[in-house]
Amino acid sequence: MSYRHNLQLTADKKLRHFLTIQGLPRAVLCEILDTAETFSHVGQQAVKKVPILRGKTIVNLFFETSTRTRTTFELAAKRLSADVLNLNIAASATSKGESLLDTLRNLEAMQSDMFVVRHAQSGAAHFIAKHAPKHISVINAGDGQHAHPTQAMLDMFTIRRHFSDFYPLKVAIVGDVLHSRVARSEIHALTTLGVNEVRVIGPKTLIPTGIDSLGVHVFHNMEEGLQDVDVVIILRLQKERMTGAFLPSEQEYFHSYGLTSEKLNYAKPTAIVMHPGPINRGVEIDSSVADGSQSVILEQVTNGIAVRMAVMSMAMGQYTAAGGAV
Amino acid sequence: MSYRHNLQLTADKKLRHFLTIQGLPRAVLCEILDTAETFSHVGQQAVKKVPILRGKTIVNLFFETSTRTRTTFELAAKRLSADVLNLNIAASATSKGESLLDTLRNLEAMQSDMFVVRHAQSGAAHFIAKHAPKHISVINAGDGQHAHPTQAMLDMFTIRRHFSDFYPLKVAIVGDVLHSRVARSEIHALTTLGVNEVRVIGPKTLIPTGIDSLGVHVFHNMEEGLQDVDVVIILRLQKERMTGAFLPSEQEYFHSYGLTSEKLNYAKPTAIVMHPGPINRGVEIDSSVADGSQSVILEQVTNGIAVRMAVMSMAMGQYTAAGGAV
Amino acid sequence: MSYRHNLQLTADKKLRHFLTIQGLPRAVLCEILDTAETFSHVGQQAVKKVPILRGKTIVNLFFETSTRTRTTFELAAKRLSADVLNLNIAASATSKGESLLDTLRNLEAMQSDMFVVRHAQSGAAHFIAKHAPKHISVINAGDGQHAHPTQAMLDMFTIRRHFSDFYPLKVAIVGDVLHSRVARSEIHALTTLGVNEVRVIGPKTLIPTGIDSLGVHVFHNMEEGLQDVDVVIILRLQKERMTGAFLPSEQEYFHSYGLTSEKLNYAKPTAIVMHPGPINRGVEIDSSVADGSQSVILEQVTNGIAVRMAVMSMAMGQYTAAGGAV
Repeated sequence: MSYRHNLQLTADKKLRHFLTIQGLPRAVLCEILDTAETFSHVGQQAVKKVPILRGKTIVNLFFETSTRTRTTFELAAKRLSADVLNLNIAASATSKGESLLDTLRNLEAMQSDMFVVRHAQSGAAHFIAKHAPKHISVINAGDGQHAHPTQAMLDMFTIRRHFSDFYPLKVAIVGDVLHSRVARSEIHALTTLGVNEVRVIGPKTLIPTGIDSLGVHVFHNMEEGLQDVDVVIILRLQKERMTGAFLPSEQEYFHSYGLTSEKLNYAKPTAIVMHPGPINRGVEIDSSVADGSQSVILEQVTNGIAVRMAVMSMAMGQYTAAGGAV
Repeated sequence: MSYRHNLQLTADKKLRHFLTIQGLPRAVLCEILDTAETFSHVGQQAVKKVPILRGKTIVNLFFETSTRTRTTFELAAKRLSADVLNLNIAASATSKGESLLDTLRNLEAMQSDMFVVRHAQSGAAHFIAKHAPKHISVINAGDGQHAHPTQAMLDMFTIRRHFSDFYPLKVAIVGDVLHSRVARSEIHALTTLGVNEVRVIGPKTLIPTGIDSLGVHVFHNMEEGLQDVDVVIILRLQKERMTGAFLPSEQEYFHSYGLTSEKLNYAKPTAIVMHPGPINRGVEIDSSVADGSQSVILEQVTNGIAVRMAVMSMAMGQYTAAGGAV
Repeated sequence: MSYRHNLQLTADKKLRHFLTIQGLPRAVLCEILDTAETFSHVGQQAVKKVPILRGKTIVNLFFETSTRTRTTFELAAKRLSADVLNLNIAASATSKGESLLDTLRNLEAMQSDMFVVRHAQSGAAHFIAKHAPKHISVINAGDGQHAHPTQAMLDMFTIRRHFSDFYPLKVAIVGDVLHSRVARSEIHALTTLGVNEVRVIGPKTLIPTGIDSLGVHVFHNMEEGLQDVDVVIILRLQKERMTGAFLPSEQEYFHSYGLTSEKLNYAKPTAIVMHPGPINRGVEIDSSVADGSQSVILEQVTNGIAVRMAVMSMAMGQYTAAGGAV
């Protein structure tokens, strides 16, 4: 309905860009999950490659450094047989005084097929998609505090692998919701996929006011918030926010909101523990939980490749759920 | 005839290195344009790849940073199916005290097939080609203020696409000719291809004395210089030269030599506007002209891939104009 | 027998990791040399590629910068058709406060197949191999002052190409043995392959005490040490060690231990001269010797690709000496 909704989808509701979960219909999210399922075996094969995007040019446009995210997108692209260009834009063309749009126009003129964009500013991927020509797809790999939709979808994929259905699930998101693009994208994904309840847990300084308008329940106490949940998603805590207005100290934060075995006991015994990484052990999560039997943190990383392969191939229109891999 | 001429060509006049336009026969320039024409469709294909240089090792030896040029060479190499190594030499081996020649000897011993060289010093690519063993081809991707031959050839390709013949054309090159390796290579290409007239336009401080010996006409006034030309090539202005001895100020330069719609009116109505990029909008060119209907600036970028594919495949002897792509 | 021995080999004595020469049976070293022999033609082919590791993901984990070594491993991997990820770990994830083990767990979860590790700390590759899951092989590309086994094996390969047999050979290693991981790995390789005699030559400050326990003879004088040797291996001298406690001056070092034609005359007339590179001309070796007819320094570089291809393919279990390349 919204402008963002339209920008991401073709007239017949197919994924064209992947910028935000907000406004995407449930059918598209399910198609991403189903497509990722078909790719999840590729990483197990002797030859970890499918020829779906052979001869395509994918540009990793990273205005903000991120080895981990860049690596998973690069791997996903290579396993789809695409050619990948890694551009650290901060350090290159724009330093010659060229405008962002001129840099993009040039990359487009080089017949690129996809931009994977990470940028410190919210809305950057939308801006780029809005100005992209017809033959370019844009994937948001994280923009400011706005959205990180592939992270949200790999989390949904991981959840679906552990539970038969989204409907009965209670999910708690714990930590610095205020600054988290991951949390925002997860809330939209979880509500669109129809989970029973989404909770956010954290100190008042780190929960945005009015977040209940997204349909989530707010808790400032772990014991109450974790009660009977099926999924616990721990957010990464930016250590640089650990002092000053937001938080008293690492120790105090860990005491109140760090996930320990004791606190995890309030969740269902079958609950799974997730974290987008990298982990701050002993700050937002105890090592015994991060490495424990309920943790699915490394499964998330593995699933991230399949989900990114799905989104890339769908956005480039090379994949049809009906026909399977080309 | 010259030493440089011989160095670039085999005994039977085939391209072996591509270092400078100067001294290359017209037939070789035309072969580059014809070969590029056969590659220009590759970027349009679903699979943007031809297997011509499969299993070849191309080393991007960049002693001077340039994301844009490096990217187009990397794309050209990948679309020819070659393996590409990107080496930022400034930051690596030579910092361990190894001489340039020892670094080259090592890369050669790794059975590389081609060096694409960018260097801040004029003559660097020649030096490397002169010392290269028989199995290595060297492509000059810009050396000091000397030459940038692939940029010149992609400009020639763009011109030929817009006009049936070079002979009747009047071409004006505008701006900082003094410091421009692009201008030098373009002048040689245009005169070798036999255009009717080559003009250079700029302030006296930015036009090298004696340049008329290359067969060009010098103008210090845009109105006169642009009169009835078919092609306007705007050079990039290095902003760091904007103060001091060379130029008064950006504003004043733009007033006198910045290409505006008004000034463009002196050229033929069918004239095209070119620029090697990146553009300084409002300094050497007005945005309305850069984005206007006569601008072919982004076509130049697209053509750059095909021209670099042509030069690379010709220099490696893998392409025969007669037989077409292998 | 040792823990390190076991870590590198499977139950049936096949190479699983390649961390150090120490403790590896002669049969494994010979298998590496024989396998490298079968790959040595690949670099001569028009298409320098074999499909042995197609679809495998090899991660270059460089905690210490080294363009030269990284490049040879990258080329070896690409010529085996693997996908290569270059990670400069110093500059990435660990800067976000993530522990080394968490970084490794993540790369493993991305279904990598091999880590090529260079680290300033001795034992780093062992540590990583010890904690690696079953599906990951680890290759040591140099750890602190401990080992550099692929360099040692490419040297053995080069020696074997020049002499019919290891048994009768006298080999001298010259220079900074104290700080050299290359020397340590070479000594283990030469003694395991059963050469007649291994000598180390250098000033007392640069020869570790007790090194004779490895079965080598120590000389502090070039004339005596080079007498009748078949192979002279010159070590690289770290210039930063040139002042202070270890060495008086470059000039004095060159006078005493720099390899000149005069000093080389003490060796057999058929002797070959080796150096791992990069060379300090006029410090540890005279240019006339480095570029002379007895030097095989560039052959070492070429052989390095084949030897690394051999080690990579063997460790990934994709190669059987019996069946040849897959």
